[in-house]
Amino acid sequence: MKVRNLVSKRYKETPADCIIASQTLMMRGGYIKPVGNGIFTLLPITKRITAKIENIIRQEMNRIDGQEVLFPVVMPADLWRKSGRYDSIGSELLRFSDRSGADMVLGMTHEEAAVQLMTDVADSYTQYPFMIYQIQTKFRDEPRCRGGLIRVREFTMKDAYSFHTSQEDLERYYMRCYEAYNRIYARCGVPEVVAVASDSGMMGGKVSHEYMLLTDVGEDTIVLCRSCDYRANMEAAPCLIENEPGQAAPLEKVDTPNVKTIEDLCAFLKIRPQQTCKAVMYQRNADDSFVVVFLRGDLDVNETKLRNYLRAEIHPAVITEASGIHAGFTGPLGLPEGVTVIYDRSLEGIEWFATGACEEDKHYIGFNIARDVGQVTYVDVAKAVEGGICPVCGKPHIYTSRGIEVGNIFQLGTRYTESMDMTYVDQDGSLKHPIMGCYGIGVGRLAASVCEAHRDDYGPIWPISIAPWHVEICSLRADQPEVAEASQKLYDSLTARGIEVLWDDRAVSAGVMFSDADLFGVPVRVVISPKGLKNGTIEIASRDKSMKEIKPVEEAEDFVVNYVKDALAALECTL
Amino acid sequence: MKVRNLVSKRYKETPADCIIASQTLMMRGGYIKPVGNGIFTLLPITKRITAKIENIIRQEMNRIDGQEVLFPVVMPADLWRKSGRYDSIGSELLRFSDRSGADMVLGMTHEEAAVQLMTDVADSYTQYPFMIYQIQTKFRDEPRCRGGLIRVREFTMKDAYSFHTSQEDLERYYMRCYEAYNRIYARCGVPEVVAVASDSGMMGGKVSHEYMLLTDVGEDTIVLCRSCDYRANMEAAPCLIENEPGQAAPLEKVDTPNVKTIEDLCAFLKIRPQQTCKAVMYQRNADDSFVVVFLRGDLDVNETKLRNYLRAEIHPAVITEASGIHAGFTGPLGLPEGVTVIYDRSLEGIEWFATGACEEDKHYIGFNIARDVGQVTYVDVAKAVEGGICPVCGKPHIYTSRGIEVGNIFQLGTRYTESMDMTYVDQDGSLKHPIMGCYGIGVGRLAASVCEAHRDDYGPIWPISIAPWHVEICSLRADQPEVAEASQKLYDSLTARGIEVLWDDRAVSAGVMFSDADLFGVPVRVVISPKGLKNGTIEIASRDKSMKEIKPVEEAEDFVVNYVKDALAALECTL
Repeated sequence: MKVRNLVSKRYKETPADCIIASQTLMMRGGYIKPVGNGIFTLLPITKRITAKIENIIRQEMNRIDGQEVLFPVVMPADLWRKSGRYDSIGSELLRFSDRSGADMVLGMTHEEAAVQLMTDVADSYTQYPFMIYQIQTKFRDEPRCRGGLIRVREFTMKDAYSFHTSQEDLERYYMRCYEAYNRIYARCGVPEVVAVASDSGMMGGKVSHEYMLLTDVGEDTIVLCRSCDYRANMEAAPCLIENEPGQAAPLEKVDTPNVKTIEDLCAFLKIRPQQTCKAVMYQRNADDSFVVVFLRGDLDVNETKLRNYLRAEIHPAVITEASGIHAGFTGPLGLPEGVTVIYDRSLEGIEWFATGACEEDKHYIGFNIARDVGQVTYVDVAKAVEGGICPVCGKPHIYTSRGIEVGNIFQLGTRYTESMDMTYVDQDGSLKHPIMGCYGIGVGRLAASVCEAHRDDYGPIWPISIAPWHVEICSLRADQPEVAEASQKLYDSLTARGIEVLWDDRAVSAGVMFSDADLFGVPVRVVISPKGLKNGTIEIASRDKSMKEIKPVEEAEDFVVNYVKDALAALECTL
Repeated sequence: MKVRNLVSKRYKETPADCIIASQTLMMRGGYIKPVGNGIFTLLPITKRITAKIENIIRQEMNRIDGQEVLFPVVMPADLWRKSGRYDSIGSELLRFSDRSGADMVLGMTHEEAAVQLMTDVADSYTQYPFMIYQIQTKFRDEPRCRGGLIRVREFTMKDAYSFHTSQEDLERYYMRCYEAYNRIYARCGVPEVVAVASDSGMMGGKVSHEYMLLTDVGEDTIVLCRSCDYRANMEAAPCLIENEPGQAAPLEKVDTPNVKTIEDLCAFLKIRPQQTCKAVMYQRNADDSFVVVFLRGDLDVNETKLRNYLRAEIHPAVITEASGIHAGFTGPLGLPEGVTVIYDRSLEGIEWFATGACEEDKHYIGFNIARDVGQVTYVDVAKAVEGGICPVCGKPHIYTSRGIEVGNIFQLGTRYTESMDMTYVDQDGSLKHPIMGCYGIGVGRLAASVCEAHRDDYGPIWPISIAPWHVEICSLRADQPEVAEASQKLYDSLTARGIEVLWDDRAVSAGVMFSDADLFGVPVRVVISPKGLKNGTIEIASRDKSMKEIKPVEEAEDFVVNYVKDALAALECTL
């Protein structure tokens, strides 16, 4: 492929709304073009990358006995009504009517379709276990699209569904898939992707993992341990901390005029946030009823854990005068009737703290829940914090990092097979619901994440396994016959040996040619110039700057082929 | 892959609503499962077939310098408003609103997206010509789904768009694509697909061809010539016939009580349909105004040609008393005001015919348009007929056949680049609109059409280039160690040599195994049985019954490999 024929255009300027580096580079390099909010066309250079990623995914899915199918993008709403998700999922699920007025949805995931497909087909225990997968377009009506292909509304996803007759079998297969995912990321050139325990969210099921590419621009917060392998998504991480019980003292109501925040309270009383109890107010979406969470003053509420505990959608409370709540002065005593009260585990065993008195400009000091409230249930609804205790090794070595989710795996259990009544006949003749797992990877997001992780200021540095081409030939002064001839010869011989070559023979300056090459991010760059040829040499360098060689013209071909083959083999890929 | 592990189930019974053979076989063989009206999941066996078809298409598109992209399925309605198609296309175009209330459509074709992508990118004549293509899901809200994958609402399609700076260049490229399409069908094992001139319909543009697989169950009628290569879709074929002028006679109004059809009229007057003039009434969709078509009594109206002539959508007229029209007695004289009158070319030069008198129970005989109406414009709006005159060779050798459309190519011209204002700077510095072509193939429909064309009563006979596997090993009595061992050895050695093998080692009767094998339609069948092994032989036969050999065990592997390689090579494919 010659650069002059490539359907794409490079830009010097950063487009206005780019917020992260990979987005900037992919826009400037002519990789993607926005069509609508969170909707992109992939230009040829990106399609070449995603095709290679899809191929690696396909190989690894086949290796763990996956069978590829193709589910529809458009599905009848009835399928989603059966599982209950038509009503339980919000407006991310795009709903519409077809010409006959039938309710339809755009697939954002395909558990329902997988169960519909296998019902009546996998009806005997002898057919289990099995896994089916697809690589298909999905649509999720995302309210906050951002970062180019990182968070979009339409995307290509590999989604896989496994079916089992026992939890043990699911767990065995789950581990095979867990390893397959590690291989996929390693082969795509991002072995730094880590699996973290996660919250299962709308998918149902209990055990689940997210694969995270750790990077500052990630949307997710990951909780990790410096002393062991513990890793979890913030949404799922327990908050374990060392409590300081303090010294019990009589309960005392004190004047705290206009002292509404923990910061103000600590300054006013000359105490530390750990000696206070914070109140955070929410309302249930369904009926606007109030929920108050009490937790140690230095902590924050983990809303995912709170939602899971309440089994209800919530939003931050809007406090009106009529509510009888004194914002800034809320505490465990004196709340209006009907407020759901939740005590976070961080308050357990504390003998002395300051908290609101449910009166304007008043706080309590010396509050002691066991004494002043009585027996309460403590729940874990706080966010894990830096220096917290690791739930695995027990050391106070928790820290946090940002990450982009590039895949996830779930143990679904019988959530879907029960609600949609899929059964099989077991060995003993009884009817049972199969146990499911599901496994997803967003292809476009993975491509963008690799770019985010592997780049410099001038462009992406594509791992050779997913690079759009293996080699770029830059012919400086291709108008000179000896340059044109040597370039053509190398292009032809490399191509004949299966190397994918991008060839730039445009009549542009070396500066333009090299800055374009940086944006293409092709792993191996070959420079053929009048000066080099005069010395009988060709320059060969890697995009990541780890290799730069001046080779005699006649050795260049073999050198490049071997370099490419070795680099591919290191990622378990071949020509 | 072992049959016992294959995610699919075979059925003896034909499902209730199957209307064509390929649909029956693909349903019975576990190839597809309906999810909704005109919406299917492809099971692994079909996915293997479509993946191979897509690969052949991709190779041929790349061979004619196509560059693969990926357009979105969901597009903003504004893109389609720009081209005018948001309003001009009916309810096949699925429209909906996203969560923010923005109007969106599901892509049924991507001319708009292609122009949007290339606007500002291909802005200099030096970048032309080029072709971009994608293989992507499309949705068309089809009112009449039928025949399994033949006519569906959701489908995978390869659609390609070429851009040119001159009509000559478009025509040159169009011919390259025309040939590429012929190669695609030949390589997919259906060289019998023919290109026919077609009506461009909603795509705009003038020259277009459809690729038709001729078969009795096709939805389209093709007009062909017995004496030359002329082929056209009925929608686009001119109706050329030999007129019999007849003998002029005075105009006479006669009583024809209750004689409302041409058949009745001919019987009543003892004349032939060729001596009558039929009136067919339509109404414009826009305002319900009447359109009457007069044509020779033995002919039918070609509504596509009529629509194109009127540049309006029409429907068969609903005649009320208030309309002043006497159904069954309509003729050129005495029509109510405001009716649009169209004379078909078949009436030109006829001196004598019988026609309605626009009065209840009255007809004219001896009607002569030139004398009784005056000078009129004759238009070609009749359907071509058996025995008509070929517009190419002039012989009266026209005949018709049924066909399934498996692809189409269009010369679009500047229809989209003008309406969407895509321009490039030409050599002389002037701004011009690029000239486009577009080229489509439905992947699933092609798979089903191949099945329709290549099958027997028991199952599909897949051409080896797109067969789900190359070879099926049927192990009769795999419980016997020598059968199991010989089967495993052959399976392993064939697989190691790149042959795709399906292996049936189930404990089922030979009858079940062979009838399942017929439904799989794998080109080469290898039967390993205790009886054969006793004689040291293995049976090898082709699914199409052209080859059946008993081979010594030690020769079987090479024989099969060579057979498969030769068969693939005959279709220009490799392992």
